[in-house]
Amino acid sequence: PEGGRMQTVTLIPGDGIGPEISTAVMKIFEAAKAPIQWEEKNVTAIKGPGGKWIIPPEAKESMDKNKIGLKGPLKTPIAAGHPSMNLLLRKTFDLYANVRPCMSIEGYKTPYTDVDLVTIRENTEGEYSGIEHTIVDGVVQSIKLITEDASRKIAEYAFEYAKNNQRASVTAVHKANIMRMSDGLFLRKCRQVAENYRDIKFTEMYLDTVCLNMVQDPTQFDVLVMPNLYGDILSDLCAGLIGGLGVTPSGNIGANNVAIFESVHGTAPDIAGLDLANPTALLLSAVMMLRHMGMHDYSKKIETACFNTIRDKKVLTGDLGGKSKCSEFTAEICQRVRDMD
Amino acid sequence: PEGGRMQTVTLIPGDGIGPEISTAVMKIFEAAKAPIQWEEKNVTAIKGPGGKWIIPPEAKESMDKNKIGLKGPLKTPIAAGHPSMNLLLRKTFDLYANVRPCMSIEGYKTPYTDVDLVTIRENTEGEYSGIEHTIVDGVVQSIKLITEDASRKIAEYAFEYAKNNQRASVTAVHKANIMRMSDGLFLRKCRQVAENYRDIKFTEMYLDTVCLNMVQDPTQFDVLVMPNLYGDILSDLCAGLIGGLGVTPSGNIGANNVAIFESVHGTAPDIAGLDLANPTALLLSAVMMLRHMGMHDYSKKIETACFNTIRDKKVLTGDLGGKSKCSEFTAEICQRVRDMD
Ligand SMILES: CC(C)[C@H](C(=O)O)[C@@H](O)C(=O)O
Ligand SMILES: CC(C)[C@H](C(=O)O)[C@@H](O)C(=O)O
Repeated sequence: PEGGRMQTVTLIPGDGIGPEISTAVMKIFEAAKAPIQWEEKNVTAIKGPGGKWIIPPEAKESMDKNKIGLKGPLKTPIAAGHPSMNLLLRKTFDLYANVRPCMSIEGYKTPYTDVDLVTIRENTEGEYSGIEHTIVDGVVQSIKLITEDASRKIAEYAFEYAKNNQRASVTAVHKANIMRMSDGLFLRKCRQVAENYRDIKFTEMYLDTVCLNMVQDPTQFDVLVMPNLYGDILSDLCAGLIGGLGVTPSGNIGANNVAIFESVHGTAPDIAGLDLANPTALLLSAVMMLRHMGMHDYSKKIETACFNTIRDKKVLTGDLGGKSKCSEFTAEICQRVRDMD
Repeated sequence: PEGGRMQTVTLIPGDGIGPEISTAVMKIFEAAKAPIQWEEKNVTAIKGPGGKWIIPPEAKESMDKNKIGLKGPLKTPIAAGHPSMNLLLRKTFDLYANVRPCMSIEGYKTPYTDVDLVTIRENTEGEYSGIEHTIVDGVVQSIKLITEDASRKIAEYAFEYAKNNQRASVTAVHKANIMRMSDGLFLRKCRQVAENYRDIKFTEMYLDTVCLNMVQDPTQFDVLVMPNLYGDILSDLCAGLIGGLGVTPSGNIGANNVAIFESVHGTAPDIAGLDLANPTALLLSAVMMLRHMGMHDYSKKIETACFNTIRDKKVLTGDLGGKSKCSEFTAEICQRVRDMD
């Protein structure tokens, strides 16, 4: 029903298993007849004017035009002074919100069931400011930068997300008992924004308490919003609860709907090219992307086909406990997608 | 065998349920005939010269003399500018290592079994420096301070701990991919110290990766060493894996064997005075204390009596799933301690 107009998305296949799992996603999208056209781009950073690392102009232009990207894993650059590609992308396109839904997957056993939460991480500042100094020999300081603007923006994003996704509560995660001014500012902005969303329950919790409660009963959490580093930690912890980075989607969202969706696992060079990789994380990230683009029917269809494939345990990749190849797992999902028509 | 000489320990019963659980510990120590004499002190902070909050001189002198303290929970001070009492104590006595062993307790069901790890947290600097500024309106910075000295000291503590406790490995937990200078310095010191302990395996891991792996399989970890905030987070997460703060001991260790052992749960004002509290965390902290003092036979005896009481599930406090009073649970442990003679 929502089909129609073809939309172009920048595809960054990435390194290692990136190309294989990207191919898998493209095949499944084709089977679902999702009106997405892929524009493949390489993002290996280059030295721009002044010796600063930048992403290649072609990739930048593609993203500027398409506004939406899907990205596989990128290998960690080894050149001295080279920034993390993931951080460079977040920065280049000012993707200020990192969103990671964590949902228990039926049939994929972990110590937890019924996890259904979303971590929303401030993606641009905080402990990731990159400002560090040596004060005197042997004494180093790193600066955590918290601004009113970025805090308000991420709080607004979290509450809008909760509203648009029928979520009941938002929890602000902080250590304002220790970092009174910086986390205090973050928390104040969350409180202020909460005032405008009276239907959504707002709570505040210390990061350490969240971690403790999370491993005891993750079902008590819904939407969680937090500064950069806390989000880095908590999103990985939560991914662990439902089966790891191989099954966890992620989205980086900026202003004007600009967004890059990505699998956050590594490049797995040991199995690259062997048709053994699990495309689930990238596929579920692509599902998030469709939802972000308003294509809810396509996203639902693909997601259901993926979850049912895992639930039925007949065709699974090795990391999911099966013996199938990436291409077989992909074909199974394609078949199920087609069967839904 | 190691009995003999009576040693005096400063006892800070604390607030809320603090006095009840302290009484429980004293009774159990008496039943075990542990040669410990208690010197009870109150630590409610007072304003010292220059208006700075300090712990009362009497308590300070007691600790300076005895070197060893046992402390129940303290309520969070509400006066403006009043520091956390826990932080004030760590600072006053320069207790630079926070040590929290996390061991699965037989009979107390959680999603995990066979957890047996120790978090060792740098307790004096890092994100807890307390240095914060407003740069311009709406822009705040907090300073994370990492020094060579404190990093080397905590690394040395961790490796000594591993050696003295027959632990096979030490993992340094960091985000040196992001905080290259500060966590980088911490990590470098860990690597250097590791050189002197060739029999102990040394590994390095990102904090986010540790969290993810921790909830998937905590049995892969042994001794973990890390900067202040990471330790705050990870120690609570690990406590969650084995049943929460009600059963997790903690010790703060300084130079020259000065140490304060403490239960890290709250004051539970709702059940204070009702004989319903669970003294396990304080008791296991007192067991750590005995071990620290070299009284291994007494510590073993008391620990075994406590664990067996929990394992047998006949006499348990409410939070442990039983219906017994604090005094009944205590009497049961006392009885078992006496039966071991
Ligand atoms: C790759 C790394 C820089 C990144 C981070 O620390 O944010 C990663 O852990 C993540 O969560 O996306
Ligand atoms: C009470 C609080 C200041 C403290 C901390 O953040 O260190 C607590 O969480 C702890 O772990 O002992």
